[in-house]
Amino acid sequence: MALPDASMTIDKQNYRQAMSSLGSAVNIVTSAGASGPAGCTVSSVCSVTDEPPTLLVCINRESRNAAAFREAGALCVNIANADQQALAQRFADKAVSVEQRFGAATWRTLHTGAPVLDGALASLDCSIESVITVGTHDLFLCAVKALHSGSEDGDALIYFGRRFHRLAAGRPATP
Amino acid sequence: MALPDASMTIDKQNYRQAMSSLGSAVNIVTSAGASGPAGCTVSSVCSVTDEPPTLLVCINRESRNAAAFREAGALCVNIANADQQALAQRFADKAVSVEQRFGAATWRTLHTGAPVLDGALASLDCSIESVITVGTHDLFLCAVKALHSGSEDGDALIYFGRRFHRLAAGRPATP
Repeated sequence: MALPDASMTIDKQNYRQAMSSLGSAVNIVTSAGASGPAGCTVSSVCSVTDEPPTLLVCINRESRNAAAFREAGALCVNIANADQQALAQRFADKAVSVEQRFGAATWRTLHTGAPVLDGALASLDCSIESVITVGTHDLFLCAVKALHSGSEDGDALIYFGRRFHRLAAGRPATP
Repeated sequence: MALPDASMTIDKQNYRQAMSSLGSAVNIVTSAGASGPAGCTVSSVCSVTDEPPTLLVCINRESRNAAAFREAGALCVNIANADQQALAQRFADKAVSVEQRFGAATWRTLHTGAPVLDGALASLDCSIESVITVGTHDLFLCAVKALHSGSEDGDALIYFGRRFHRLAAGRPATP
């Protein structure tokens, strides 16, 4: 059945409600440019292609972090494990300073100099190949230059239905 | 600590291994153009902006489905619930015909004519605003024209660690 004009019902709130059903990994995305380290929690990250290894990060282009990533020309996607929920919340909270964010965990670097999070499920250290602006947001197309895979047994931290969830790596699939 | 040249280790396999840690929703993406219905299972879907409501779908540009989506100029992202794992597997299996794929579920239409899956957690019916080619893949930038949100109590179907998982909507977050 075709609704007469369902498009009239698409406002921000309806869209956000529907997208809250799109479960996603929780990522702490970092960089280190001339103005120092920067980082925020991002759910809009996805793989683009493995020829060559390329992923995509989407964040608000007006944010301080988007500016920092553009300036640095590089970023690291750290896929949070389930034990890093509190850290992810720090990196999502505008009231928490850069020092307080980075002070709460251990970091190293791999190739680009962007902070690599100790204990992440995986970290992908990338150069930013291009930036595409779509409305309020920037799409960062990122070429993976170095990576670190953590323990394969780590539980995932998933954001779904406006809440954090722990997803056990070993839990069996749907019966 | 900086490794001397960690970038040398980035091959397809290492990249895929790291990205298997990136948990994601499982989406059945459909369209209906002049050459009939088409659809496949896609994990690379993310929100871009809510001003105006826009999402992104990434699939192999050489695939039959990418061609069908480009031809139709529209697609519907159906976010699978945990009970739709078998259906998602059908839509991911190249050996399963279009008829067998669509015959296994109930569909309707909303605005663009793309098939809308009964029982999905949410369905977002979109016009394709632009297509950006990155290596082997197409990024479809999609404006949401109509949507349907299903039950808020539905469990999510999450792909993580190369396996399907059921994520209960009501399960408490990490303690």
